[in-house]
Amino acid sequence: MHIQPPYLMFLGDAADQLAAKTATGVCQWRPEWCKGQLRLAGCNADLGLPDMTVDEAADAGIKTVIIGVANRGGKIAADWQATMIRALERGMDIASGLHNRVADLPDVAAAAHANGRQIFDVRHPTGTIELGTGEKRSGKRLLAVGTDCSVGKMFATLALEREMQARGMKADFRATGQTGIFIAGDGISVDAVVADFISGAVEQLSPANDADHWDLIEGQGSLFHASFAGVSMGLLHGAQADALVMCHEPGRPHMRGLPHYELPDIEACIALNEKTARLTNPDARVIAIACNTSAYAAPEARAILGDLADKHGMPAVDPVRDGVAPIVDICQGL
Amino acid sequence: MHIQPPYLMFLGDAADQLAAKTATGVCQWRPEWCKGQLRLAGCNADLGLPDMTVDEAADAGIKTVIIGVANRGGKIAADWQATMIRALERGMDIASGLHNRVADLPDVAAAAHANGRQIFDVRHPTGTIELGTGEKRSGKRLLAVGTDCSVGKMFATLALEREMQARGMKADFRATGQTGIFIAGDGISVDAVVADFISGAVEQLSPANDADHWDLIEGQGSLFHASFAGVSMGLLHGAQADALVMCHEPGRPHMRGLPHYELPDIEACIALNEKTARLTNPDARVIAIACNTSAYAAPEARAILGDLADKHGMPAVDPVRDGVAPIVDICQGL
Repeated sequence: MHIQPPYLMFLGDAADQLAAKTATGVCQWRPEWCKGQLRLAGCNADLGLPDMTVDEAADAGIKTVIIGVANRGGKIAADWQATMIRALERGMDIASGLHNRVADLPDVAAAAHANGRQIFDVRHPTGTIELGTGEKRSGKRLLAVGTDCSVGKMFATLALEREMQARGMKADFRATGQTGIFIAGDGISVDAVVADFISGAVEQLSPANDADHWDLIEGQGSLFHASFAGVSMGLLHGAQADALVMCHEPGRPHMRGLPHYELPDIEACIALNEKTARLTNPDARVIAIACNTSAYAAPEARAILGDLADKHGMPAVDPVRDGVAPIVDICQGL
Repeated sequence: MHIQPPYLMFLGDAADQLAAKTATGVCQWRPEWCKGQLRLAGCNADLGLPDMTVDEAADAGIKTVIIGVANRGGKIAADWQATMIRALERGMDIASGLHNRVADLPDVAAAAHANGRQIFDVRHPTGTIELGTGEKRSGKRLLAVGTDCSVGKMFATLALEREMQARGMKADFRATGQTGIFIAGDGISVDAVVADFISGAVEQLSPANDADHWDLIEGQGSLFHASFAGVSMGLLHGAQADALVMCHEPGRPHMRGLPHYELPDIEACIALNEKTARLTNPDARVIAIACNTSAYAAPEARAILGDLADKHGMPAVDPVRDGVAPIVDICQGL
């Protein structure tokens, strides 16, 4: 998979700004790639980009239309398909984060074929994935783990990529979810691979590399999430991480989507992640805590982070407020 | 899925007896269902069943042809397909454990449709699987876990079903792999579901039941297997097991398929399985060790089992040599 920038962000008839969360994330991290947005009637989201038709986008040199919103209901509407087909006719590729496969739409698939263009259904891994082997690979790796889903793993790893590259280190973000894949231009939605191949997918995503190169692997789920822990486990084994960063959102009332489950104790979460990771890398350890403290005013956030750092004996930062320099400092010593 | 007995066991051109391992397992546990075998030219396996043509099988009241062997190479040969089509024409269903889907063969699929028969590709889960919720379900559950793959989890759970039913207890074996599915007549190949749905598949496989009913859930893989641990993790969370049985084969030189990985220490394996299982059932504990001691003479096997029982403070049995009565004794007290 190689999704080519620059991008036209297709927002369809997104009901609100939250429905365009994926598109927003891509704009935040790759503003230089996001050249325009295309909104259909009824769209209530706005990325603050120039509005463009497909033809204007083609004239502007756009290479790929990113479908960065969910469609309403199960079917992909006719006006969406017409937009996609015109984009393919004008020489652009389609990269979609929809649950339904765009490549399964006969008219759209035919247009891609006729025009020699590609459709990337990023939620649906394609190509051969081998079973994980657990064999040691060269290069350094960091994996974001978490107390829960949606606690900032993608943000933390992207911030680490930015900070490492700013310091002249060799570093690549490795995407394991749809938003990350649009940001990286490639990746594997690990939660969508066949269960036997989770660790193998992560091995493939993060191949052997230079000894001083860092792969910054986006995590998914949590070992303590009753729905998704199998994915988190396969990520830990496949990543062979030298360093883990524990991502956390203080104050959550319960695990995401599971109102009857409390968040795990951070210490227990650190211990179980380290134990699990050490099967494939005996040196794995949690080196820092990355917190989303957006629900708190600055003084409260400061106090929370200070307490976490003291209690666990490692840096605790909010990547949005503070950046991730203390984490990269530790990586440079590994 | 409901695979109807009695069965005709299709062996194709199996190269040797080991290639018919699945079929052998079905015959061992469901001899009353396995009425005949069908062998093509070049077949070197023999189940000791009457050889039957498809027409003889139909006349004998066979309901389903079980494809219990792997095909050589990637394609399903023309003579295999001709046999399947004739079976469908004669009113039988097909249940296949092949990696390739029989339902994807146009001529065979057309014959099934024309004759109102079913094709069960048991390695490929069908139907909707919901995300796991971790919500408590009524009924008792036992899950077989292991130090490695292929250490006797299916055998142990089937032996438990037999022993419990012999004692008049309510008990059902719940199959999670192809051989088990042929034996149970239904089930879900959990290693083939999409990764996000592992625990959800197990919840679906083992729904709420009578308070004194036992589901005996076939395990897969091992938390210490670098290829497959994600599947094992999802099984532990989805099963909400009251009781775990640790399956083990003493003397293995390394983890199956991973020559660079030693087997885990049993004590560590018990501890991690219990810790993981307790996320969704705080009372989960390992109640016994089930060993495959087939590599040892009886006195040695006796000594190994005695040592394990002493060291871990729980019964250690070889289900083949000893049965599983001590394990059921404990279940009756739970």
